[in-house]
Amino acid sequence: MDFTIRAATLEDCKDISRMILELAEFEKVSDHVKITQRDLEQDGFSKNPFFHGIIAEVPEHLKSREGHTKVGYSLYFYMYSSWKGRAVYMEDLYVMPEFRGKGIGKALMAKVSQLGLAAGCTQLNFTVLDWNKSSLDFYLKQGCWDVTSELGYHCMRCEGEALQHLAQGEL
Amino acid sequence: MDFTIRAATLEDCKDISRMILELAEFEKVSDHVKITQRDLEQDGFSKNPFFHGIIAEVPEHLKSREGHTKVGYSLYFYMYSSWKGRAVYMEDLYVMPEFRGKGIGKALMAKVSQLGLAAGCTQLNFTVLDWNKSSLDFYLKQGCWDVTSELGYHCMRCEGEALQHLAQGEL
Repeated sequence: MDFTIRAATLEDCKDISRMILELAEFEKVSDHVKITQRDLEQDGFSKNPFFHGIIAEVPEHLKSREGHTKVGYSLYFYMYSSWKGRAVYMEDLYVMPEFRGKGIGKALMAKVSQLGLAAGCTQLNFTVLDWNKSSLDFYLKQGCWDVTSELGYHCMRCEGEALQHLAQGEL
Repeated sequence: MDFTIRAATLEDCKDISRMILELAEFEKVSDHVKITQRDLEQDGFSKNPFFHGIIAEVPEHLKSREGHTKVGYSLYFYMYSSWKGRAVYMEDLYVMPEFRGKGIGKALMAKVSQLGLAAGCTQLNFTVLDWNKSSLDFYLKQGCWDVTSELGYHCMRCEGEALQHLAQGEL
């Protein structure tokens, strides 16, 4: 299929915001999404951005039923492992349902991997929901491994009042 | 106990490297550590650093049996959630065994939380090994929650030849 992968720009934030919601609806957590187009513009496209993005785009004649030509995206940022050093984290990987099975997801993931390797990273990290078997199978087939199942790592989080309280701990 | 928490500098990399190895030995994976003092200096203290660090230090008269005054550290970096926005990731939290139970770990975690909140973050994220019950209990007591157990998120990774191969996927 005819598509291109390119770096996201400020003008893509409207479509990224739309696709973040589509992905969250698939993951059954759309009420968890607090991020707006404006947040993405501020956080990803000002000095010292918190993330970077890439967009999958199809030509006008292949546009979606609703008229979209931006049909997939990935957000990523650089991180650090105190064992292995520089790493890249893929926060989201999404392709609109009617454009799946055409290699777009694999191409987005390839691009994030290329960018990570070029920056000196030795790892690509991301998370997957354990009930999302088709994604998990896709990733395992690409040679990824499940750190949680194999080593026992659990993702932990502190937010809201608990985070405020934690920050007030005595020095 | 008399201790201070401060931002890490280039001169702390030797001690951070020592404590990374101590932590990995405790986690039974010291052979996994590929990072040297020089890597930390380059990756954390040049333009666009991949991580930031804080150090817990005790006065000379309280130094460790081996003569160390730098007795704990945390590495952290900023990340992004496409649902909740800006977040801070605590890569390591370590206090030397003979200095535990004195509030140093809690103070390090408080400092990372403060820095995250000041940068507009709404989440503090980190991982914990499921067999490390004392750490898990400590974090749960601070109001953190286990994202893997509660929502089913698994940490995934691609590295080495698999990452090279992934990056070569067709565009």
